[in-house]
Amino acid sequence: MHPIRSYVESNKKRFLDELKAFLHIESISTLPEQKQTCAECAEYVRSELARIGFAAKIFPTVGHPIVYAEDLNAGTSAPTTLFYGHYDVQPVDPIALWTTPPFEPSIRNERLYARGAADDKGQVHLHLKGIESLRATRDSMPCNIKILIEGEEEIGSTNLEKFLREHAAMLACDTVLISDTAMLAPGIPTITYGLRGLAYFEITLTSANSDLHSGMFGGAVENPLNALCSIIARLKDEYGRVAVPHFYDDILPLTPEERKQFASLPFSDEKFCASIGIPSTRGEFGYSTLERLWARPTLDVNGIWGGFTGAGAKTVLPAIAHAKISMRLVPNQSSKKIEQLFKEHITNITPPTTHVEIQPFHGGEPALTPMDSPGNKAAQAALRFAYGKEPVFIRDGGSIPIVPLFQNILNAPVVLMGFGLPDENAHAPDENILLENYFLGIESSAYFYEEFVKSLSKTHEAM
Amino acid sequence: MHPIRSYVESNKKRFLDELKAFLHIESISTLPEQKQTCAECAEYVRSELARIGFAAKIFPTVGHPIVYAEDLNAGTSAPTTLFYGHYDVQPVDPIALWTTPPFEPSIRNERLYARGAADDKGQVHLHLKGIESLRATRDSMPCNIKILIEGEEEIGSTNLEKFLREHAAMLACDTVLISDTAMLAPGIPTITYGLRGLAYFEITLTSANSDLHSGMFGGAVENPLNALCSIIARLKDEYGRVAVPHFYDDILPLTPEERKQFASLPFSDEKFCASIGIPSTRGEFGYSTLERLWARPTLDVNGIWGGFTGAGAKTVLPAIAHAKISMRLVPNQSSKKIEQLFKEHITNITPPTTHVEIQPFHGGEPALTPMDSPGNKAAQAALRFAYGKEPVFIRDGGSIPIVPLFQNILNAPVVLMGFGLPDENAHAPDENILLENYFLGIESSAYFYEEFVKSLSKTHEAM
Repeated sequence: MHPIRSYVESNKKRFLDELKAFLHIESISTLPEQKQTCAECAEYVRSELARIGFAAKIFPTVGHPIVYAEDLNAGTSAPTTLFYGHYDVQPVDPIALWTTPPFEPSIRNERLYARGAADDKGQVHLHLKGIESLRATRDSMPCNIKILIEGEEEIGSTNLEKFLREHAAMLACDTVLISDTAMLAPGIPTITYGLRGLAYFEITLTSANSDLHSGMFGGAVENPLNALCSIIARLKDEYGRVAVPHFYDDILPLTPEERKQFASLPFSDEKFCASIGIPSTRGEFGYSTLERLWARPTLDVNGIWGGFTGAGAKTVLPAIAHAKISMRLVPNQSSKKIEQLFKEHITNITPPTTHVEIQPFHGGEPALTPMDSPGNKAAQAALRFAYGKEPVFIRDGGSIPIVPLFQNILNAPVVLMGFGLPDENAHAPDENILLENYFLGIESSAYFYEEFVKSLSKTHEAM
Repeated sequence: MHPIRSYVESNKKRFLDELKAFLHIESISTLPEQKQTCAECAEYVRSELARIGFAAKIFPTVGHPIVYAEDLNAGTSAPTTLFYGHYDVQPVDPIALWTTPPFEPSIRNERLYARGAADDKGQVHLHLKGIESLRATRDSMPCNIKILIEGEEEIGSTNLEKFLREHAAMLACDTVLISDTAMLAPGIPTITYGLRGLAYFEITLTSANSDLHSGMFGGAVENPLNALCSIIARLKDEYGRVAVPHFYDDILPLTPEERKQFASLPFSDEKFCASIGIPSTRGEFGYSTLERLWARPTLDVNGIWGGFTGAGAKTVLPAIAHAKISMRLVPNQSSKKIEQLFKEHITNITPPTTHVEIQPFHGGEPALTPMDSPGNKAAQAALRFAYGKEPVFIRDGGSIPIVPLFQNILNAPVVLMGFGLPDENAHAPDENILLENYFLGIESSAYFYEEFVKSLSKTHEAM
């Protein structure tokens, strides 16, 4: 048995007790009344890192503190990794739907239930225990290790960008490692290597200076609700493609290898449809469901409103119409460029009988780390070793804005090695982590560092 | 001076005092607490009719009472007219915007201000005084006169249809006369000879069994908001025509005479646009603004809603979308047939990835009385004589559901001889009637009956 596995085996009970203590601390970042417990949670992380030999420090922010720790004893010639996680959690409402209290961690069906069990305290903790296991079984660390644990991820990581920019030298690294994603399914170790970005707008279309009587004025006056529908209908073509000119120009197409990899995954259109109650999928012509979800951009109306929306009939010809429209972006689209293209196109297709206003909301960039990056290859080897089976590479249709932030500011590729599950109930009642994934996650974390050094040296040899 | 004019001249002060007394009675039909004053108002009308020699009676309904009166002394060989009006009024909110209290009639700028001054107590009263003037200046009435004044017009004339059907024999007549419309402009005596009808629907489009995350599902799942917009966009073509198959089949086209008549009216597109703050009109290709408003059908979205409509951005892929869509219909369209065509078309163009429900609301039929009907010709002559100038024939883009009701049940053409004005503020604060129109209305009412007999006999001679 590998010394790390045997160390984990002999410390399972203590690890679990420590995880429960960590999860017991109420660290809901959005609640002002938990500001103190959030600070206690940060201090818990700091002291735990100090205990296992790291130089660990609290960095106050105008919000919740950031914990930073490092062990640079591998020396300047050795590679450097930065692990990122967050100790803050989502609110627990609706509290009545929890089987056991969210901050009283409880084990049922081989899972540990608590707020933060998967997102992200459980996944932070398995790394703390992974690093502890690594140190306990070696004389020295294989590489320099930096650790950054923030307390504001659930409220938009408001102070993280400033911190990264101000401390870019301190945080300099060869790869960023994050465990805040989910596995494709139980028993399938998973690396997420791509994320979609987001561009989000609110459109307001106006015509007359007040609502009008549909009998007195109908037929001679532009109705902004009809006009808005026509505009929206023109944003996608009959093949499900976004009809904004130059929208697809910058997209990095899927490689044949990626399409083959997606096609090999255990995914069923039938089950997908059944799970959400739809008769069939619908999307861009020429792409599979997983390709559409993970690697193709979208355009969706997220909200629309205008005119009379109460019960019954009102013969009004409304003067104003609203819609929220967002686009998921894929590597290598830029939310700023898409904003420009979208605004131009909307302006171009807005009828001259109406006035349009386009308000952009905060977007996010897509992200991609090649499957064969040194970090991804290290994660692949570590997961293969821990789980005893070949990991899969997937993408995620959602956006994790901090990922492009790390890539852009630190200029280091990000590895997303997640130990959650699709039914982990993140942000919902009965959040949980499968115990098997917690323990195999500890092993994977410990193996990662050795594998990263190996992977990097192989890459250098190849060059 | 015509004896009627001189009778009106010498009774002006008394007429006005009586009108004020009538308007002073609070008869808001929608308010349960004014049930008693509505009954008093009905009794006021009944006793007034009895006073000028009519057999007048109150018919209770499950709502507010109907007043019916008749003078059939002209005999069975003489023609018969039925005058219809209503004594109930709209609520007075927002009360703060009234310059003087709504039930304290007050004269300013040659107008009488009060709730009901134009809609419709003022216009009922001018007929009571017209008939009184006629009787006072003649030995006998030129025709049989029936009078029906209801108290529920402002709440949908709920009990009128039943009353008309049950008393069709009693109400039998050669024409129905109504004064509940407005003149084109001050100083332009006006006959409204056409009204649009209405078909009104609520559409609900559903896809998945719950709202979804736009990142996790966007790109592979039909978005019912996008789909609804596409459906709505397909309901009109690029020439502003309604794209429901067979929608135009039954329409009675405008005659060259009607188009010439509309074109001769004092109407300015520029002023129309300026009055509602739009840069230009928009409507069906090939028709003028008045033609579009009065004699061409429409399709308008009256309301639309779905998804996230709060402040900011929410990345939701909604499961349900709603719209209220109505069509104004023109003679000879049938709201029932249009309902059938609309439902079929919506069902046909709804994507198979969604489920649609179409809920019809109560519609209304269009109405048309030929400009040269005996009643319209009588109104034309009466107005010409009273005002000393040629009246205009217009249509109205709105719907008055009781008009087709009278036409269908009593099988008698309806004459709409209105004495209101576009700025009469019906249903709004500071409702008013121009005193000149009140007094010339009394004369017109009195002249109408003699002219109707003449007009009918001319028609018979011509045949």
